Amino acid sequence: MDEQVPATIGELGEFALIERLTARLPQGPRIALGPGDDAAVIAAPDGRVVATTDLLVEGRHFRRDWSGPYEVGCKAAAQNLADVAAMGARPTAVLLGLAAPPGTDLEWVLRVVDGLRDECARAGASVAGGDVVRAPQITLAVTALGDLGGGRPLTRAGARPGDVVAVCGRLGFASAGLEVLAAGGDGPAELVEAHRRPRPFYEAGPQARELGATALVDVSDGLVQDLGHIAAASGVRIDLDGAALPVPEVLGPDGLRHVLTGGEDHAFAGTFPPGTALPGAWTVVGGVSAAAGDGPAVTVDGRPCAAAGWDHFRS
Amino acid sequence: MDEQVPATIGELGEFALIERLTARLPQGPRIALGPGDDAAVIAAPDGRVVATTDLLVEGRHFRRDWSGPYEVGCKAAAQNLADVAAMGARPTAVLLGLAAPPGTDLEWVLRVVDGLRDECARAGASVAGGDVVRAPQITLAVTALGDLGGGRPLTRAGARPGDVVAVCGRLGFASAGLEVLAAGGDGPAELVEAHRRPRPFYEAGPQARELGATALVDVSDGLVQDLGHIAAASGVRIDLDGAALPVPEVLGPDGLRHVLTGGEDHAFAGTFPPGTALPGAWTVVGGVSAAAGDGPAVTVDGRPCAAAGWDHFRS
Repeated sequence: MDEQVPATIGELGEFALIERLTARLPQGPRIALGPGDDAAVIAAPDGRVVATTDLLVEGRHFRRDWSGPYEVGCKAAAQNLADVAAMGARPTAVLLGLAAPPGTDLEWVLRVVDGLRDECARAGASVAGGDVVRAPQITLAVTALGDLGGGRPLTRAGARPGDVVAVCGRLGFASAGLEVLAAGGDGPAELVEAHRRPRPFYEAGPQARELGATALVDVSDGLVQDLGHIAAASGVRIDLDGAALPVPEVLGPDGLRHVLTGGEDHAFAGTFPPGTALPGAWTVVGGVSAAAGDGPAVTVDGRPCAAAGWDHFRS
Repeated sequence: MDEQVPATIGELGEFALIERLTARLPQGPRIALGPGDDAAVIAAPDGRVVATTDLLVEGRHFRRDWSGPYEVGCKAAAQNLADVAAMGARPTAVLLGLAAPPGTDLEWVLRVVDGLRDECARAGASVAGGDVVRAPQITLAVTALGDLGGGRPLTRAGARPGDVVAVCGRLGFASAGLEVLAAGGDGPAELVEAHRRPRPFYEAGPQARELGATALVDVSDGLVQDLGHIAAASGVRIDLDGAALPVPEVLGPDGLRHVLTGGEDHAFAGTFPPGTALPGAWTVVGGVSAAAGDGPAVTVDGRPCAAAGWDHFRS
């Protein structure tokens, strides 16, 4: 008998694939029941659960020639885990929906799941369940859950005039890295690596809550656009101080543009009561004032700044 | 100015689309924070949360020429809500990830969300959040959450020799309906309707738990295959009684095959201690015995029955 080792997920089949994936996924103490049943059961000690979901479509959110599978998995987890942290919560579990053609390389899929698992571990969460289906195109649907630990959720709606605006984490690196890749890949490895694998500081979310933050977002679509959500939800004006924005030289001549409009680094941007003593990981970049006659807005050095961020339906 | 009313989701744009969708989604009392922030916050009074996710891909799980958008939305919700109920839990919230080409008809998407909303309402849940992205193909990624109300989760692993096997809900209707559609649509409307829109009796899950069920599944891939999961997880043999299986005449000459191998009606199949007084919605269809030398298995009238059910990677 010359039995071939399956090289694709179609050759392996659905149930064997699920077994292979599940075997790679250790379950943390928050998981009362992991993969393998109709649903997972996850601890929610707070009595509330924070929940968010995001889709990543091949060719749109990642390219297999630009990112390895491990990085795709890390990034898919990171963008959801960061949304949980941006509520002031700690991630507990992630579910993965994977749609892929049967001819998809098995090793590629296993490495995606390894990346998902390892990024979850960085945030204290486990991959507790999921679904695999056949489709013409690779799509990852990731859901992340989290626990508020008895605290209030940090929404976008609480910013008040007089608050300071602060950011935690790098800005513009992923965006600059994407441009390096689009131009052929000849540029700082630090930027390309930032595009391939964001490394959010998840603890910034609960930390912001404990510091008394009045609003918090994760910067996924661009600083101006995401702060615009706080401005709109809180009915305030947010004034950024151009000189205070961290624009390191490695970002190149368009550094400020990347910092203002680039997403996907999953930094955190929040508003804090005046006088809040912020730890070193946070940088004050502006302030909150009452909305002017033209309504809630984001300005840079007093000038209105159009939110030239990311629309998921435009090219 | 001759401003055109947007007809497609691409013309409307991501943020306006999210606003339009959100406006159609009332939030029930379990939702502490609904759509519009980085994540939703949902009550989990039990201190644990049940969570499951499923993908529906156009052409694979639904066809726009066979099902209307409202029915696609209902079905997408139903298959996830049924998974929550199959753990013995009551659904609380659903998240929707929608990937679609920008040219997708806006009205079609709004009706999908209406269906999702209404099926959630049947189960006591709300659509509390989601994500919309651009993709070449329509994919729905649905996550459902639920609450165990202080009870134990009903897994697949608790069936014991001597238990009775019972089902709640129709079997084979959706499968027979799919064959009617594949053959051109000339057949009983009742079957076609069952394929388009399953109507699980969600309360069967918590009811089974209160009745002392030892194991429960939702029949999504076929009765034999799904009971096979209980047999394998519990290490038992499940013997179905052919004469006890409900095979109504409307299912046609292949009725028994549809009942044994057809999925997507989202009936519930469980095992109960001998002597359990089952309400009228449940039908006893067999019993549990010790696994024979050939291991856990499902038999019909004593004969082994191969699980000719659904593999999501095969055609």
